[in-house]
Amino acid sequence: MAKKKKAARPASKRATKPASKPCPTRRSPCPIACTLDVIGDRWTLLVVRDLFLGRTRFKEFTASPESIPTNILSERLQRLLQSGVIKQVPASDGSKRLAYELTDKGDALRPLIKAVTKWGLQWEEGTRIGMTPLEK
Amino acid sequence: MAKKKKAARPASKRATKPASKPCPTRRSPCPIACTLDVIGDRWTLLVVRDLFLGRTRFKEFTASPESIPTNILSERLQRLLQSGVIKQVPASDGSKRLAYELTDKGDALRPLIKAVTKWGLQWEEGTRIGMTPLEK
Repeated sequence: MAKKKKAARPASKRATKPASKPCPTRRSPCPIACTLDVIGDRWTLLVVRDLFLGRTRFKEFTASPESIPTNILSERLQRLLQSGVIKQVPASDGSKRLAYELTDKGDALRPLIKAVTKWGLQWEEGTRIGMTPLEK
Repeated sequence: MAKKKKAARPASKRATKPASKPCPTRRSPCPIACTLDVIGDRWTLLVVRDLFLGRTRFKEFTASPESIPTNILSERLQRLLQSGVIKQVPASDGSKRLAYELTDKGDALRPLIKAVTKWGLQWEEGTRIGMTPLEK
């Protein structure tokens, strides 16, 4: 298996090289298929959305309006950790619990999230921006 | 249930209003959640990708390198039709069979597809653009 490359981080932009090993169940080398192997389901991008909005804790993700089932959330967080999209960090409240943060690879999903948002607002009737960034 | 609105099509740009009724199992009004209700799975965007590459027929979709199972393909095509992302058209070979085309709503997925492609190429090791537009 190819070894992961260490990402250099330019001053102006985020890192540009892979931060995790390829998905073992890859269907083709197509970048769309491979991206969908990582984030192609009904829940994963909602967790990524929450992270972009400043939510970092398991209980914060479960409090989102879609009411993600806890077993699905646990599984998706594990998958996002394995694929290098998120990382575990100490909770900001000083407790022993862990929180989650986007890695550079996860942060690079911002344009994709924006494109999804824009399409939804334009084409799915009754959608609206309702969630606000979490105050810390 | 809200009635679908007929999209007007400006000369310069694509239509700007919804072309289908809201998903009945909507989890929230969030545009990301609603978009994922339409295209959030491991296969649907691959069919959309194939349509952007000029593939229009059932057998062409099954010939793609990911080898989509025919039962999944049938189900996804039905869902894409119901959500107004694709439409059925007569096959270009003059046969009685039907083909599929992107609607304006489907064509508006292009920036999303590009964002997915870009992220995959940048962050998923070993990915490459391998499929070429279909010659007709």
